[in-house]
Amino acid sequence: MSSKNVHMANAFDPSSIDLIPSEVRAMVDRRNRVLAPSYRLFYQEPVEIVRGSGVRLFDSQGRSYLDAYNNVPAVGHANPHVTQAVCEQMSRLNTHTRYVTMPIIEYSERLLGLFPDEIQQVIFACTGSEAVDLALRIAKYETGKEGIIVTRNAYHGTTTEAATISPSLGPHRPVANWVRYVDAPDTSSEGSDAGPLLAARVAEAIAELEADGVGFAALIVDSIFSSDGLQTDPAGFLEPVARVVHAAGGLYIADEVQPGFGRTGESWWGFARHGIVPDLVVLGKPMGNGLPISAVLGRPEVLDRFGKDMRYFNTFGGNSVSIAAANAVLDVIEDQDLLGNAKRVGKNLGSGLREIAQNYPMLSAVRGCGLFYGVDVTDASGTGRADQAGAVRIVNGLRSRRVLISSSGKDENVLKIRPPLVFSGSDLQEFLESFRAVMEDLHG
Amino acid sequence: MSSKNVHMANAFDPSSIDLIPSEVRAMVDRRNRVLAPSYRLFYQEPVEIVRGSGVRLFDSQGRSYLDAYNNVPAVGHANPHVTQAVCEQMSRLNTHTRYVTMPIIEYSERLLGLFPDEIQQVIFACTGSEAVDLALRIAKYETGKEGIIVTRNAYHGTTTEAATISPSLGPHRPVANWVRYVDAPDTSSEGSDAGPLLAARVAEAIAELEADGVGFAALIVDSIFSSDGLQTDPAGFLEPVARVVHAAGGLYIADEVQPGFGRTGESWWGFARHGIVPDLVVLGKPMGNGLPISAVLGRPEVLDRFGKDMRYFNTFGGNSVSIAAANAVLDVIEDQDLLGNAKRVGKNLGSGLREIAQNYPMLSAVRGCGLFYGVDVTDASGTGRADQAGAVRIVNGLRSRRVLISSSGKDENVLKIRPPLVFSGSDLQEFLESFRAVMEDLHG
Repeated sequence: MSSKNVHMANAFDPSSIDLIPSEVRAMVDRRNRVLAPSYRLFYQEPVEIVRGSGVRLFDSQGRSYLDAYNNVPAVGHANPHVTQAVCEQMSRLNTHTRYVTMPIIEYSERLLGLFPDEIQQVIFACTGSEAVDLALRIAKYETGKEGIIVTRNAYHGTTTEAATISPSLGPHRPVANWVRYVDAPDTSSEGSDAGPLLAARVAEAIAELEADGVGFAALIVDSIFSSDGLQTDPAGFLEPVARVVHAAGGLYIADEVQPGFGRTGESWWGFARHGIVPDLVVLGKPMGNGLPISAVLGRPEVLDRFGKDMRYFNTFGGNSVSIAAANAVLDVIEDQDLLGNAKRVGKNLGSGLREIAQNYPMLSAVRGCGLFYGVDVTDASGTGRADQAGAVRIVNGLRSRRVLISSSGKDENVLKIRPPLVFSGSDLQEFLESFRAVMEDLHG
Repeated sequence: MSSKNVHMANAFDPSSIDLIPSEVRAMVDRRNRVLAPSYRLFYQEPVEIVRGSGVRLFDSQGRSYLDAYNNVPAVGHANPHVTQAVCEQMSRLNTHTRYVTMPIIEYSERLLGLFPDEIQQVIFACTGSEAVDLALRIAKYETGKEGIIVTRNAYHGTTTEAATISPSLGPHRPVANWVRYVDAPDTSSEGSDAGPLLAARVAEAIAELEADGVGFAALIVDSIFSSDGLQTDPAGFLEPVARVVHAAGGLYIADEVQPGFGRTGESWWGFARHGIVPDLVVLGKPMGNGLPISAVLGRPEVLDRFGKDMRYFNTFGGNSVSIAAANAVLDVIEDQDLLGNAKRVGKNLGSGLREIAQNYPMLSAVRGCGLFYGVDVTDASGTGRADQAGAVRIVNGLRSRRVLISSSGKDENVLKIRPPLVFSGSDLQEFLESFRAVMEDLHG
C-alpha cells in the first residue's frame, strides 16, 4: 500500500489476490466490485466463513477455526438461547420507543441493577460509535464546555465526532481544536506509578484546555485501553485520574465497549476493577451478541438537562428485538457464570502465554485480565523496538493453523487475544498448543 | 413544558400522567425511572403495545390499532418471511465484514441492481444517522471543502454531525459555521416554480459558503422533504438544483431514509422520481424492516479516496443477520409488488384525503405520493396560519379511535400519514372512515 493509504497490519493486501485459493479469490473479486474500498479483510489469506457455533467458525469446506478473537459473540456464535429469544420477539413485535412496551423497561432495570447505585438511567442506541457520540453530546451540553481528553492511541468509533477522538484512525481522521491527547499508561514500564502519572498528564491537558479557552468537558477512557496496547494492572490505577477529572468539574466517561459484560472476569465493567464510578458509561459490542445495540448510562443529574432540552430519538435504539437479544445475553452470562469462566480460563491464558513468552525474547511482555490478553512483539535482540512484522507473522501463522487472533496497539505489534467468553479450558489448551507450534515454526 | 424544553407537539405530556389508565400509568412510571428524559412517548394517552401483525398493533388487552404511521416495518409488523430469514441466519452465523461471507456480496449486488448504473458501491452501517454522518465525512474528504447545505426544517439524524445539519431539532442542537440553510420548496404555493426557486436559493448559499471561505462540499436533501411538510410534486423539480450543485463542484447526497424502498410507489428511490442521479445515497429505516441496517451507496470515484485513506470499520454494519433481514425485505417488496400497492392504494389515499379536506377549510392542503401523505392543518378562517393544536387534536382523535398517525413540518401542523407498505385497500377504507369520523367529532 502507498504511504498515503491507511495502514492496517493485519489486513489482506489486495495486490496479493492471485496468491489465494481460486474459490475465495472469486468471492473477494465480487466483493471488491460492490463493497467500497473502505472494506478490509483480515489475514494474508482471508478467511471465508459460512457457519459458527460456540467458539468455532466453519468455512464452506467444513474446516473449523478456533475463534480466539471475537468479543461480539460473547456468549458464543449462534448461541441457541439468544437465537430463540430473537426469533420469538421477531414473530411477536419489533417496534421503537414512542410506544409503551414492557421488555425495554424490564431490561433497563436489570441492566442498571448491574451498576453502582449512582448510575440510574439509560439511553439506547445501536452501535458503540453512536453511544460514544451521544455521550460526548451530553457531556458538552451538560458542562457547557467543549474539551475532550483521550489517550494517544484511543479508538472510540466511526461517527465524525467519535472519529475525531480516535487518534488510532491515523492522520486522515477528522481533527478538532477541542481534543487533547495524553499518553496512555504503559503499565509494563510504569508499574504502580501508572495511575498517578496518568492523572498528572490529564491534569496538564485540562490546564491547557482551560488556558486555550476551550474549557474541559470530559475525559473518555476505554477502561481496558484496548487500542493502547491493553493496560490492565494494577487494578485501581484509574482512581487518581477520576479524582482529577471531578475536581476540575469535568465528566468521566467510561468506554466499556471492550471491557464490559464480564470480559475482565473480575467484574461486569472494566471501571469497577478500578473502584471508580463514572458519570457516563458507554456499552456496545457484546451487548446483543451481534445484534446492533449499544447504550449510554449515567447519573440522572447528568442526563437530565440534555434530555429535557434536546430532541433525541434513535429509531432503532432499544428496538424490541435488540432488547430481547440483550436480555438473553444477560441470561447466558449469569446462567453459565461467564464472569467466573473468564476469570478461571483467563488466569490460565495469562500463565500459559507467560510460559511461552519466557522462551522467546520477541514476546517481551504479556498483559491482560479475564479473556483479553495482549502480547508485545518486539525486536528479539532486546532493544524493545516494536516488531510489527513479527506480530503479523504470528497472527498469520495462527491463521494457517486455523486459530483466529489479530494485532493492535499504536505500532500494531501487540497480539490481541480476546475469544468469546464461552472459551473453555480445552479451547485454551488447543490455543496454547497452536501458539507454541507457531513460535516453534518461526524459530525452526 | 417550559419554553426552554424541547417541543414535540405529539408527545405525551408527563405532567398529565394522572389522566391515563392506571395500568399504563404504572408502566410509564417505571419507564421514567430508568429511561433518561430524552425518551418521549407519542399521544396524550400513550399507546401500550405487546404484539404486531401486518398493519395492526395490539395492546395487552387485545385491542387492535390500525398502523397508518410506521414506515420502518414496511413489509408489515412481524412479517413471517423476514422472521424466518432472521431466525435461520441467527442459528447459522452472525459476523462482521473482516471475513469473506457470501450473503453480503449477493445482497449488495441485488441492492445496487436497483440503482442507476453510476451507483456502483455500498458501505453498510446500522442507522440512518450513521449513514448520513458517513456520507458527510466522505463528501468533505472527497471535495476538501466543509460546507453543507440543508433545508430549513431538515432532519437527517442524531449523531453530532447529523444533528448539526438537522435544524428541525430546535435551538439547542449543535451548530457549526459550515452549515447553510435554504427554504425547502413549498410546492403547495410555488407549484411548477418550486424547482427553479430551490435551485436559485441553493446557488445563493453556495456563493455565500465560497465567499466565507468555507467552500461547498455537498447538498443533502430528503428526496421527499418529510420534515419540511412533505414536498413531492411536480416530480422532476429536483433536477435544476442537482445541476447547480454539480456545476459548483459539489456533491448531491440523496437522503432516502424516508422515500426509499418504494415508499413513493413510483420508483424504488425518491430521487428517481425527479430524474436525477445523486453522488451519494443514504438508506435506512425500512431497509431491514426494523433490524438495524443502513447504507451509503455511491459513485465509485466518490468513495475511492476516502476508502483508501481512511480507516473506517463499522462492527455491526453489514452483519450477517441484518443482511438476511434486508434481503428478505427485498423479496417481499418484489414478490408482493409493494411498489404497485403503494401506487394504487396511495392514489386512493390521496383522493380520499382530498375529498375529506374539501369539507373542512382547516385541512388546507394535501400533498404526497405513494403511501406517504401530509395534510396541512391551518386556521379555518382561511388566514393560512398553521394550526398545531388542531393537528394535535386530529392525531389524538384518531388515536382514541385506535388509528395511529403523527404530525410533522416546521410548525408540526402537518398530519403525517405513512403506513407500512402492505396497507391494503380495505385498510385504507377503515382509515378514511376513522378520519372522517374524527373530523365530524371536531366539528360536531
